[in-house]
Amino acid sequence: MNKIYIPLETLQETLAQILLKHGFTSEKAVKCAAVFAQNSLEGVYSHGVNRFPRFVRYIREGYIDVNAAPSLVNAAGAAEQWNGNLGPGPLNATFATERAMQLAEANGIGMVTLAHTNHWMRGGTYGWQAARQGFVFLGWTNTEANMPAWGGKNKKTGNNPLVFAVPFGEEAIVLDMALSQFSFGTMENSVLEGKKLSVAGGFDRNGQLTDSPSEILASRRPLPVGYWKGSGLSLLLDILAAILSGGKSTSEVSKHPDEVGVSQVFIAIRLQKLHNFPAIQQTIAGIIDDFLHSEPAGNGFPVRYPGQRVVETRRENQAQGIPVNRKVWEEITSL
Amino acid sequence: MNKIYIPLETLQETLAQILLKHGFTSEKAVKCAAVFAQNSLEGVYSHGVNRFPRFVRYIREGYIDVNAAPSLVNAAGAAEQWNGNLGPGPLNATFATERAMQLAEANGIGMVTLAHTNHWMRGGTYGWQAARQGFVFLGWTNTEANMPAWGGKNKKTGNNPLVFAVPFGEEAIVLDMALSQFSFGTMENSVLEGKKLSVAGGFDRNGQLTDSPSEILASRRPLPVGYWKGSGLSLLLDILAAILSGGKSTSEVSKHPDEVGVSQVFIAIRLQKLHNFPAIQQTIAGIIDDFLHSEPAGNGFPVRYPGQRVVETRRENQAQGIPVNRKVWEEITSL
Repeated sequence: MNKIYIPLETLQETLAQILLKHGFTSEKAVKCAAVFAQNSLEGVYSHGVNRFPRFVRYIREGYIDVNAAPSLVNAAGAAEQWNGNLGPGPLNATFATERAMQLAEANGIGMVTLAHTNHWMRGGTYGWQAARQGFVFLGWTNTEANMPAWGGKNKKTGNNPLVFAVPFGEEAIVLDMALSQFSFGTMENSVLEGKKLSVAGGFDRNGQLTDSPSEILASRRPLPVGYWKGSGLSLLLDILAAILSGGKSTSEVSKHPDEVGVSQVFIAIRLQKLHNFPAIQQTIAGIIDDFLHSEPAGNGFPVRYPGQRVVETRRENQAQGIPVNRKVWEEITSL
Repeated sequence: MNKIYIPLETLQETLAQILLKHGFTSEKAVKCAAVFAQNSLEGVYSHGVNRFPRFVRYIREGYIDVNAAPSLVNAAGAAEQWNGNLGPGPLNATFATERAMQLAEANGIGMVTLAHTNHWMRGGTYGWQAARQGFVFLGWTNTEANMPAWGGKNKKTGNNPLVFAVPFGEEAIVLDMALSQFSFGTMENSVLEGKKLSVAGGFDRNGQLTDSPSEILASRRPLPVGYWKGSGLSLLLDILAAILSGGKSTSEVSKHPDEVGVSQVFIAIRLQKLHNFPAIQQTIAGIIDDFLHSEPAGNGFPVRYPGQRVVETRRENQAQGIPVNRKVWEEITSL
């Protein structure tokens, strides 16, 4: 067994102590550690604990300025542009989400953009943050180039994760989708487990579609979601992130060997301001009920709404502790 | 040859005259005919002239109220909710786009939602409308259920077209994507031409993925873009359209045998209000230049940005006339 199970509080405190050693104020250390711990608690290990060592490396490299916070560049009513000043991505993104909610509180809808920020880890974090407080959330980030355009061979676009979230009772419905069919993390795990991907996830070195993760990792040609459609959507998300924030595009970010200084967009909408607010939860419940009553295709994929598994995993991990790879834990405790 | 080539002006005037006969005021007839004619001019025949007979049938059935216009239900600052009152979809959507731009002009960002409206035909129309006037556009519509959820067998979600647009010089970059991998129109055309789809587009009657359009038309199981990802995105777009407008969800729209009274969202962002406005066109040009310099994969798919082909087709059709299927033209001139 290469996993150990760690209670949320222990995990969070361990990470916070490491951040304190790296110059975080106590308040920021607690907030930032909470994002990483929560991501693992909710099953997104790739952007939770597993990613923490790289986050610390980026601090040591000077890519992340632990003392930097966003500064306002331009206020245009319900839309604001902020400079992330290369601060810690999760803190910048949490701030931007909060500020978008404030703008939505005042204006019905609010948008905050962040230029020169860093990797926000798991986009869903900010969807949950906003939805739990009664807001609709739309947001996305650009990334370094990690995917060829449709029809192209070399990496040109980012997988630019896109997040849509709505409140759902005490929980939320949160779609957090990168625009590659599979993440590199998923493909690497599949190789380790000796498994094929469930559907074609990219091209092999001969340019044929394949479900072999090792072939795709070798060709570096993951498939955009929906072929030409995801390729186009990825391009648009990058253009919008760059121009709305005044920050770097994917091609500019990619000039640096590591992923530093990305651009992000955060849009919040205040549901309480809508005329139909009293009926909204009933409408959502009706849609989800209908969706979950799909006749099963019997292909091994259960019908689930986005975020459903997060709630289940959170409950499991609250009960059993958060599963952490033993090697990752050893690495973390040595930081 | 089963196509005839009709100049834009002739096409538009023919359609306008038919709308006048069906009770449109002259101003509305001109505007509405222009949308249909422009969609065909720009190569989206399925939602241009080819769809016009069905539009007229919906008027005759009483589904579309030719005299109805949107009415304001709720104003919350930069966000407004309007009732489409079952007016003509293209006119309602043109109005909502215009109103979203006005709100963005005043607030940086603006959102208009439409409940109880009708099919907007081609979503890209509204992206071009806004982008040509210097706005970013994000919009989507829900539809009747026409696609199974991922893991499900019977149709539960809409293909809910999503539009992102940005100005690009005198033109625009416009992504207009339905969330099924292929439209029913494309699949029907492929059957007529005896062609396979370029990639798997759905399931056959045995639940196997297939590139045979006739098999997919028989099973009524088109594939969501990116499998589970498009299925989730489609669900979120429906939830948002329904709750933000206070209108019908896909499952509610689907209770009627025809597609009547859908819900739509229109978001505009004013680029001129951004601090980096002077540099925006250069940023976009740089991104597109890099994208188009992809190393070709040699798989028969050219690398193109969304909207690129629209510009090319528009030029061709302006020069040669708009190609219209002879049978469709006979049907239209008999209306």
